[in-house]
Amino acid sequence: MMTFDATHDPALQSWVKSANGHEDFPIQNLPLGVFSLAEGDDRIGAGIGDRIVDLAALADAGLLEGDWTETLGEDRLNALFGQGYEAMGELRAQLSALLSDEGRRSAVEPHLHDQSAVEMQLPAHVGDYTDFYVGIHHATNVGTLFRPDNPLLPNYKYVPIGYHGRASSVRPSGHPVVRPQGQRKAPDEDVPARGPSARLDYELEMGIWVGEGNALGDPIPVEEASQHIAGYCLLNDWSARDLQAWEYQPLGPFLAKSFLTTVSPWVITPQALAPFMKPMPPRPEGDPAPLPYLDGGPKDAALGISLEVFLQTEKMRQEGEAPHRLSHGDATSAMYWSAAQIVTHHASNGCNLQPGDLIGTGTLSTEEEAGYGSMLELSKGGKQPITLPNGETRTFLEDGDEVTLKARCEKEGAASIGLGSCTGRVLPARGS
Amino acid sequence: MMTFDATHDPALQSWVKSANGHEDFPIQNLPLGVFSLAEGDDRIGAGIGDRIVDLAALADAGLLEGDWTETLGEDRLNALFGQGYEAMGELRAQLSALLSDEGRRSAVEPHLHDQSAVEMQLPAHVGDYTDFYVGIHHATNVGTLFRPDNPLLPNYKYVPIGYHGRASSVRPSGHPVVRPQGQRKAPDEDVPARGPSARLDYELEMGIWVGEGNALGDPIPVEEASQHIAGYCLLNDWSARDLQAWEYQPLGPFLAKSFLTTVSPWVITPQALAPFMKPMPPRPEGDPAPLPYLDGGPKDAALGISLEVFLQTEKMRQEGEAPHRLSHGDATSAMYWSAAQIVTHHASNGCNLQPGDLIGTGTLSTEEEAGYGSMLELSKGGKQPITLPNGETRTFLEDGDEVTLKARCEKEGAASIGLGSCTGRVLPARGS
Repeated sequence: MMTFDATHDPALQSWVKSANGHEDFPIQNLPLGVFSLAEGDDRIGAGIGDRIVDLAALADAGLLEGDWTETLGEDRLNALFGQGYEAMGELRAQLSALLSDEGRRSAVEPHLHDQSAVEMQLPAHVGDYTDFYVGIHHATNVGTLFRPDNPLLPNYKYVPIGYHGRASSVRPSGHPVVRPQGQRKAPDEDVPARGPSARLDYELEMGIWVGEGNALGDPIPVEEASQHIAGYCLLNDWSARDLQAWEYQPLGPFLAKSFLTTVSPWVITPQALAPFMKPMPPRPEGDPAPLPYLDGGPKDAALGISLEVFLQTEKMRQEGEAPHRLSHGDATSAMYWSAAQIVTHHASNGCNLQPGDLIGTGTLSTEEEAGYGSMLELSKGGKQPITLPNGETRTFLEDGDEVTLKARCEKEGAASIGLGSCTGRVLPARGS
Repeated sequence: MMTFDATHDPALQSWVKSANGHEDFPIQNLPLGVFSLAEGDDRIGAGIGDRIVDLAALADAGLLEGDWTETLGEDRLNALFGQGYEAMGELRAQLSALLSDEGRRSAVEPHLHDQSAVEMQLPAHVGDYTDFYVGIHHATNVGTLFRPDNPLLPNYKYVPIGYHGRASSVRPSGHPVVRPQGQRKAPDEDVPARGPSARLDYELEMGIWVGEGNALGDPIPVEEASQHIAGYCLLNDWSARDLQAWEYQPLGPFLAKSFLTTVSPWVITPQALAPFMKPMPPRPEGDPAPLPYLDGGPKDAALGISLEVFLQTEKMRQEGEAPHRLSHGDATSAMYWSAAQIVTHHASNGCNLQPGDLIGTGTLSTEEEAGYGSMLELSKGGKQPITLPNGETRTFLEDGDEVTLKARCEKEGAASIGLGSCTGRVLPARGS
């Protein structure tokens, strides 16, 4: 389905000089986002190097072919997402041309802003947020903590396991995470007590932004599912492990997760990711084939994205130390189900997905410990503290800790791109 | 907090003659809703007898004191809900006066429509939908099917158990329910297969519409929680039991519920329900007291609402038989946690509730079998078919079955009110 075109040419350069060789946002990326120069004035833009181009202004100035004024004049990307995959590809092609053609520079340049001068907002109004659990090494690691002999439940290799999350508390990178209060009960205690979570954790995930939706009652065939994806981001599914352990049976995680979910503000389009997509890793010997409704779709359905997590403690900040890399690796290869399979499963009962819905993959850990995607896994359920370079130790997150997720795509013969970052600092619990 | 005023006077009559002695909507009720006369023209109204008064038109005509034009000119009730408890009480007082004072009749009457001539819409844009599990007899009945010796899990009497539901598939009464397809695996089968649910069920619940919200990070004290409730409705949490049994571990129900949730279209305000509220039933001997953050709030926190479920099969419809009452009883007394406690718990980790959010109580069954709130309970997990008056039998719902939920409040010395009804008919599964 995906074809490579001039927008992917690794030799393509922009007249925005900072874009050329930019770590995250060369002209081959062109991520979408919502930014504000002043409070309440949210505008749709595209990242290019260390600048952002105001797309509503481009449309108003007549620099885009076709009728984009209304869609790009919105304060969120939902309407653009709803126009679908082809329309977003068309916009990308026009932006690529405008930002590479020196002859368009004088017309376009007045509509650029420095990224350092704007505040990035949530890309879309999130109608529904759903979190999956497709990182098989994470599921195995967490399952092992509870059921050493039988870490994966019988449904795991048939069902892309997912659950509904809280849409109202999704925030863009930079929003602080207030340590939640809640009920928790240690195994050796008779009764629960309420207090600040003592096992606050991050979860390294990819986020999927839904593009064109489906009508209630109409499933999405797996062959068409990737056309319903508007883009990707990083997602931190902050988790209070002690609240979760006490509350989650029988209906799943609730307050342990709903206090905040952070996303990176840039929407990395499927078109930008196309050069890095690769076949899904073969299923291990003996695993069942996907049921027919999940079997099919694009040949290259695996996201070729490598992920990193950084931690900077209060002490490190005070002493001018750079964030410490906690983990890194090709964790998107750990997805047992592809993004297309996730979308198809989600709509397979007739559930309607809508433009701007957000889907998390679930925590992505590599098989190796170096790429574990949560403190729960790195500290073996809190039993083995990890030691930071400055001698501090951590089992879970302390107040003042700042967690940053990063992601990159690199491949021989393609221009490398990044997804930006997803950051949050832990603030002390409030009230009682 | 609640005071009785002239709007509650059982002797109060309306010049809308059908309201006087009306089963559901006498002038003491005044439920809010959204209606349309033509597609796309959604307007806010209030029910009175068998008519509906156009509130935007009243505001435009200058018949309401204060500035209501913008709030009531919206196509959904979110903005009105966000104005809070006192403002909604003020609107009620004005409507009560306008609809009872014969002197206002000639000004107001042009803004009335027959309910039979309008289509009722969803009352609010549902930002988030959350479903709880506070019906203790239902939880006990369902738990007994799986764990006869230990039906309630250890957290049940400490935590108001809840989970996130799907907001996009909430629909008003009358929307058909398409039998969902999904994975299911019988205990005696080795592998799952996909197909239409064979165990489609309804769940009798109350819905709570959130009024004024809270900021992310700021809990809602239990003493203030009832002020954050804009109103109540009936809610049918359609459930595919076979899909649920296979998918729900470890993260809870997902596709088994997300294909449709139906609500009655009328928002019954706390002010209308005030005369029927009563103290929460005493906790059984030996049960723990609520933790301090959940202990307190209004003295009369229990909803005094009796509930009924009716079933009409295709055959009954063809033969002109009236719907058969499957169950009835004072099921709201089965709420182990009050609506105020539910709201406080939901926000206790800092999660932000927003005007128009929808909260389900979970299935409400009386202790007695006559008031069981689901087919799962009535048929003992599908093992004991129930026989209908015409000789048909049911364990779960068949195509063509129509389920209707109803609710009433009756009390000596108060004018009885009803909540309207919540109906849905089962359509055959689509596609494959």
